[in-house]
This record gives sequence, structure tokens and C-alpha cells, in this order.
Amino acid sequence: MDIYEQAIDLHKKLKGKLSTALRGDVTPETLKLFYTPGVGAVSKYAEGNKDKLKEVSWTNNLVAVISDGSAVLGLGNLGPEGAMPVMEGKSLIFKHFANIDSVPIVLNVHTADEIVAVVKAIAPSFGGINLEDIAAPICFEVEERLKEELDIPVMHDDQHGTAIVVLAALINATKVTNRNLSECKIVLIGAGAAGVAVAKLIHKYASPEIVVVDSKGIIESSRKDLNPEKVMLMAYSKDHSPGKLEDALKDADIFIGVSKAGLLNADSIKLMAPDPIIIAMANPEPEIMPDLAKAAGAAVVATGRSDFPNQVNNALGFPGIFRGALDHGVTKITDDHKIAAAEALASLVSSPTADKIIPGPFDDGVVEAVANAIV
Amino acid sequence: MDIYEQAIDLHKKLKGKLSTALRGDVTPETLKLFYTPGVGAVSKYAEGNKDKLKEVSWTNNLVAVISDGSAVLGLGNLGPEGAMPVMEGKSLIFKHFANIDSVPIVLNVHTADEIVAVVKAIAPSFGGINLEDIAAPICFEVEERLKEELDIPVMHDDQHGTAIVVLAALINATKVTNRNLSECKIVLIGAGAAGVAVAKLIHKYASPEIVVVDSKGIIESSRKDLNPEKVMLMAYSKDHSPGKLEDALKDADIFIGVSKAGLLNADSIKLMAPDPIIIAMANPEPEIMPDLAKAAGAAVVATGRSDFPNQVNNALGFPGIFRGALDHGVTKITDDHKIAAAEALASLVSSPTADKIIPGPFDDGVVEAVANAIV
Repeated sequence: MDIYEQAIDLHKKLKGKLSTALRGDVTPETLKLFYTPGVGAVSKYAEGNKDKLKEVSWTNNLVAVISDGSAVLGLGNLGPEGAMPVMEGKSLIFKHFANIDSVPIVLNVHTADEIVAVVKAIAPSFGGINLEDIAAPICFEVEERLKEELDIPVMHDDQHGTAIVVLAALINATKVTNRNLSECKIVLIGAGAAGVAVAKLIHKYASPEIVVVDSKGIIESSRKDLNPEKVMLMAYSKDHSPGKLEDALKDADIFIGVSKAGLLNADSIKLMAPDPIIIAMANPEPEIMPDLAKAAGAAVVATGRSDFPNQVNNALGFPGIFRGALDHGVTKITDDHKIAAAEALASLVSSPTADKIIPGPFDDGVVEAVANAIV
Repeated sequence: MDIYEQAIDLHKKLKGKLSTALRGDVTPETLKLFYTPGVGAVSKYAEGNKDKLKEVSWTNNLVAVISDGSAVLGLGNLGPEGAMPVMEGKSLIFKHFANIDSVPIVLNVHTADEIVAVVKAIAPSFGGINLEDIAAPICFEVEERLKEELDIPVMHDDQHGTAIVVLAALINATKVTNRNLSECKIVLIGAGAAGVAVAKLIHKYASPEIVVVDSKGIIESSRKDLNPEKVMLMAYSKDHSPGKLEDALKDADIFIGVSKAGLLNADSIKLMAPDPIIIAMANPEPEIMPDLAKAAGAAVVATGRSDFPNQVNNALGFPGIFRGALDHGVTKITDDHKIAAAEALASLVSSPTADKIIPGPFDDGVVEAVANAIV
């Protein structure tokens, strides 16, 4: 069986990944307290008060993982049913790595207005909202409005979880290749949720030259088809001439892929500056496989996968981010939080090498380091 | 500490009642299958297909407990925060008694249109919907529309869970007092969600005389303030003259209370037929305390509370109902299911007595008996 058949097989055997568990023993004595009549007093205690509710209910440690399934991994619009296995996987990671209780909620509504309305309606049930796999550009409006209108932490993980982990990887990859990130030329392919957020956070951190490429080519000023986020991305590069990925890659130091399998080939890597850094994060199949990238001259290669070195995966970010936000009462996750989290992740690798620019999710101290950055 | 202080204390100590747990070990090897890259194949497998999703996700055993907090226990409109401790208690009961995973979802929207829209939007996340503590008459429209529009089991527990357990109690209470339920006169106080459903199910089962009383008095044809459900209730009684609870109680065999603490007194019980049956289910404080009712001549007394004999509590119903619906693929819970469940519950008490007309939630076989009735 290949890894995909094994995955379906394991999911069928376990009938899913999550279940609920109880914090106390249920006996005739405790049931009087957990339920009627005792619980009536608990309800009166929590009435109209989120903070008091957190004292007496699981909302103090509870995050909703919410998706409409419109952009599942790199697989596209799989709808709510197709999204659920990934969201349940997020909840599994929340629990295993950060001991955060979380509930996957998949939606069969897809406009920004509908998604915002539903999330606002159910928000009192949770201590935080992790948005996931919602397609661009709707994801930007959904996240902005929910951050504005809710008083619990809201994060679109595809954007900010990805950006934090990519920035951590770049901090160490530039060390390994003796570069100064501010002086690098970066080519980023994929201007969806992840691409926009990655570019914004790297710009905020070091202002390097960043050329962004989407499915139509380089994002530049002659393009008439650009949404507001893509127009904003043009400010990060000096060169605005039309072209394809290959044109952008000439003399680039860093390739970042948040697009689709197979979009980068060996010949294109040879156009880049010597010893380039390749971060190819398309899921589940990267833009180029690591062995091919190395054969073409890449000095450092990272992917989103756990079966190669340098897994640049959100699993390093979101558990610690929400652990920190819940523990420290942080209701807005800011750019400063994200940069501090990226630096914390990078610093966990004391001597970065080409095959170890970033900790693995099973390494000690990952969640704690990130959580301590969210204060 | 009284029971209410103890309840708040225990909830603070445990920080809630629920948590999530994982069905499999998380290791570097299994993470490749639970999450990227393996999970991509699981998502493709489940895309657009609820049945396939049930094979590979926790939706096969998952019920949402949903409330807008507009009618929490007998305490009234406590809003979403006030509702959460009760809903988390329902989820605790689902897990402990029926091994059903469930998630409490409290809403801060309160119109029928909004509640229906939100529940429909999140429905793909669940295998069943247990509506709870939504005020009448909105609860009727919400439940009807969701039953019509969703293809998973939907039940408003305040209505049907209560009705099932009351009917079970009456089947045995009439045995204890040598009555034929069809020939009894029943006075029911409280024409909200529970009252309407209790009257409907008893009528369907045995067509006794049922006089319903609400906060304005007897529901009868001179009233100009009746909603459609209350108009429907008039068909269950022959006598339609105006009056108060005391007028209705003359010669009644059975009092059923789903209203407020203290609404029944000893003098009123003395107006009833000899050896009356008193089922006083206001929560957390019943319409009359059992010792007072017995002193006034009641032959059988039941309440909703676990600290007195004869707890007529929904906890006997909803765990088995959803266990049966999930296990047997039942998507619509019908009156026939409810009557079969009531008969199954009643039959668990082989020799009913005044202090044992109904099993307790901790008795053996309760969930199995009810679940086997939902086929």
C-alpha cells in the first residue's frame, strides 16, 4: 500500500481521529452537580459573561477549526465533506502538541457574508477561532471582519501559520547560505491566502525584494486582473515587467512555492543565483521534489511534508500560537506576535544546517517557544 | 455548601466537563497519515459524500447539542453563555451513558430564520442535531424546518425527550394506581416546548382528556392570545370553559408540570381525584416538593431531579434515541419511535411501585432499550 492507501485504511480502522472525553467521573452524586439541579446555578453564574463562562466550562481551552472546504490543502474546492478529514487532523494536532481541545466545523456556505454570520453566531461556544482552507480572496475579508467583530483570537492559519513558519525557515536558511535576508531577491509563486501573508510578513520583517507570480505570470502593473491584495504585493518589488516564473527566477536567491505540484523544474533552478534556497510547500505534492532540486544546485530545500527533511508545516505554528493566546488572554494576534513566534521557532535550531533549518513538530519545546512569543 | 455552591465549585475545579481525545497514537509515522500528505487522499475519498465521510471521520458518532439559550432549564432566557454549562452537561451525558461524542454549540442569534441558517451551515460537521433549550414558539418552526431540510436526525429534546420520558412514567404510574390512561383526566401546566410535545405524544398514545394551562389560565376557545400550537392543544379536551389551574384540577387524575417552581400547592392537590399522580418537572425547582405533594394525598410523585425518587428526566431519553438513530441509520425520529422508546423505558421497571415508576439513568440497559426502539 502507498501512503495514500495507508491513510484511508487507518482512518477507516479508527473511524476518525477525534472523540470527546470527560473531565470528571459521572456518578449519581456528581450528576446532580454536572446537570440538573446543580448546573442551574452554574448557568446563572455564567449568564452574559464570557470570562465567568471560561471559569466553569471548556471554552477556556477550546478552539474551533473552521473551513468551508473551498481550498483544501493544494487540492482545491472539495466542499465541507472533503474538508473534514483535514480539519479533524488539525484538531488532532492541537490536542497532541498543545493539549488544546478543538472542534472541526465544516460549513456548506461559501460567501464572506455567510461565513462571517455563521462564525459570529457560534462564537460564544469557543475560546478561539482557527480559520482553515478558505479560498482567497474571500478568506481575507472573512478574517478581517471576524478579527474586528469578535473578542476572541481569530487566525486564518493558511495565511499566518504558514507565514510564521516560512519566516522561521528563511531566518535559518539564510544563515546556512551566508545571506542577509534584507538583501535577497525572493520569488514567490502562489498569490492565494498563504502567498499574500508570507509576502507581507517577510516584507514587514526584512523588506527584501519579493517578486510574486500567480497562475497568469508575474504580478506587475500592466496586469488588469489583480485583486486588491495582489496590487498591494507589487510594492514589494522594484521590477514590474511582465513575464513568467522563469523570467522572475533569474538571479533570485530564494524560491517560495505555495502553489501546485510540479511547477518548478531543474532548469528553472539553474537560472537562480548560486546556492539558492528552495521552499516548495505545495501540498500534498511539492512544486519540485527535494532530490531533483538538490541535483539542480539548491543549497537548502524545504517542503511541507513530514517525509523529507525541513518540514515547513503549519503544525509548528498554530498549536503554540493558540496555546499562547489562550493562556495569556491575547485576543488579537499581531504582526509583532508572528515575528516573535518565527524568531522563537528559528532559535530552537541552535546550529542550522542544510538539512535542519527548522525544528520538527516532535522536537522538544516547540509549542512552549511559540506560546511564549504570544504575550 | 448547598448543592448550587457545590456545583459551581466543582465546575471551577475541573474547568468544565468536556475535553477532546484522540482515537490513535500520534507519532512521526502516523502523522503522515493523519495529516499531510496522507490525509489528502482521505479528503478526496470523502469529497461530496456524507456516507463516505462517516467511514473516515468522527461524524459517524457525533451529535451537536445546539441552543440559543432562550429557555435554559426553567430559568428563562440566559443567552448563549448561560446556556453553555447545561449544553456541556448534555454532552457529558451523551458520552457517559451512550458513548456518543457530542459538541455543545451555543448561538447568539435568536430568530427562527437565523437559527435554521446557522444549523444548516454547520450540519455537514455532525451526524445528528440535538436542539435544546430554545424557547417556544420559535423552537417548533426551527425543528420542523431542520427536520425537513437536513438528512441527519434532528430532535428538539425539550419537546420529544421530555415527552418520551413522561409517557414512560405515566404508563407505570397508571399501573401503580390501577388506572387506564385513556380514561384519565390530565391537567398539564406549561404550554411551551415541553408541554406541547408531552400533550401531543400522550394524545397520540392514549387519547385521554388533557386540559392545558398556561400562565394566563386554561387554554380554551375564548382566549384571543393563542399561538397555533396552543390552538391545536384545545382538541385534546372536551371542556373549554375559562378558568385557572385550580379550576382545571377538579377531579383530575394526573398533574403534569413543565412550568415554574411553586405553582402547585397542597390545597390544589386536594381538589383532584383520589390518589392522584403528580409529575412536577420544573427545573431546577419543581412545581411542588415531593414531601408536600405526598402529604396532600398524591399516590405517585415524580420530579425532574436526581435527588428524589422517580426522576423524570430527559437523560433517560436522548442518549438512547441518538444511539439508536446513529447505529440504525435513522434520519427522521417519528411518533412511532417515541412511543416505542417510552414503552421500552417503562418495561425496564418490572414491578412498578409508587417510588419506582421509571428506571434511573444509572440502571442497566436504559440506553440499549431506547436505542433498540429507534429502528
